[in-house]
Amino acid sequence: MSQPSHSSVLPQTELTRHRRLREQGSFRRADLDAILDAGFVCHLGVIVEGRPLVVPTVYGRDERVLYVHGSVASRSMAGGTPVCVTVTQVDGLVLARSVFEHGVNYRSAVIHGTVRKVTDPDEKLEGLRRLTEHATPGQWSYARQPNRKELAATTLLALSLEEASVKIRTGAPDDGDGPDADLGVWAGTLPLTATWGAPEPDPLLPPDIPVPAHIARREGTRHG
Amino acid sequence: MSQPSHSSVLPQTELTRHRRLREQGSFRRADLDAILDAGFVCHLGVIVEGRPLVVPTVYGRDERVLYVHGSVASRSMAGGTPVCVTVTQVDGLVLARSVFEHGVNYRSAVIHGTVRKVTDPDEKLEGLRRLTEHATPGQWSYARQPNRKELAATTLLALSLEEASVKIRTGAPDDGDGPDADLGVWAGTLPLTATWGAPEPDPLLPPDIPVPAHIARREGTRHG
Repeated sequence: MSQPSHSSVLPQTELTRHRRLREQGSFRRADLDAILDAGFVCHLGVIVEGRPLVVPTVYGRDERVLYVHGSVASRSMAGGTPVCVTVTQVDGLVLARSVFEHGVNYRSAVIHGTVRKVTDPDEKLEGLRRLTEHATPGQWSYARQPNRKELAATTLLALSLEEASVKIRTGAPDDGDGPDADLGVWAGTLPLTATWGAPEPDPLLPPDIPVPAHIARREGTRHG
Repeated sequence: MSQPSHSSVLPQTELTRHRRLREQGSFRRADLDAILDAGFVCHLGVIVEGRPLVVPTVYGRDERVLYVHGSVASRSMAGGTPVCVTVTQVDGLVLARSVFEHGVNYRSAVIHGTVRKVTDPDEKLEGLRRLTEHATPGQWSYARQPNRKELAATTLLALSLEEASVKIRTGAPDDGDGPDADLGVWAGTLPLTATWGAPEPDPLLPPDIPVPAHIARREGTRHG
């Protein structure tokens, strides 16, 4: 996905430098890309009348731009509005000997930027294609694509992927070589895995329409 | 969990009224409680130097208060700072005949309030107990509880559960009785389920320490 002019190292800025838990910070663009590719729901933060608002919504991306589906918050967003988009995968619980050392294994990307409302119909269509394909690969060419009226009724926001902060925690708890190791308390991790289930047909669907392969093949596969 | 003086209906305020997708809105406190109980990671939104910041963190609760573990954002939070805490469970993809009708089945709670730093040692201990038990029931009395030094080094934030907005989407796509139903496109939902895996012992753990029952029994159970 990377292009020659697109650095593989994320810039360290006032917004993205890691203030704590440094050992969990990553400035590899490949880590950012992997976290974004693993999920399809982000949490979009915006300031509305002086207060923060955080709403879940779906997203897609290309190499440099994150596309976010317009949501309750978009009403409040003119171009140039500062936003923060966070994508988090939770991989499990870290169960230590002491409560103090408990934690979560996770991967998160925090993207800072100013939002741009996509108005060009071609870019909007391409952004929606990426968003659709991100959640369900193969679906864009299978389902009916948006017509002009639907396209106009859809709010699509774009955000540069330039300024992002990545944190990753993996592995065992950190108190295995300290005094608490003598307590006889079990310690380790409890993994959490998301899995796609069997497709459930719309009750209104005629029974002779088969589940297409690009949807059927996800059943039982891991998500995230 | 409810008390006589604690309304089972969430107040409709300027911040919580549903501006769109009304059919997905719920003002039942029981729905809020269920969404909070289903997860253990929230997204905490705060304004830092005029920009929104959204960070994932863990939480617990009692009947009226949400306790949030101090995070990168807590540095910026004095008492009275406005925050937004959002908890989202993703239940699957809604695959419609048309791209326009695609969506996500989900449950989300958006909590608005001003943050209070918990300083009273008893409340802090109780808040951490709720937070620990929320993620791993049975763990508080099993692991070593925080000592005074650890308690002082932990930032715990409290937020009233009074002002919250709940949205829930379930079921099939919405275009089963429209003109797109004739397209012959498969439509339905693709469920997503999170499941706890087998506990993975810390490599530094002596082999004779068994997995305690309260952790072992989660293996294979659904989360969320």
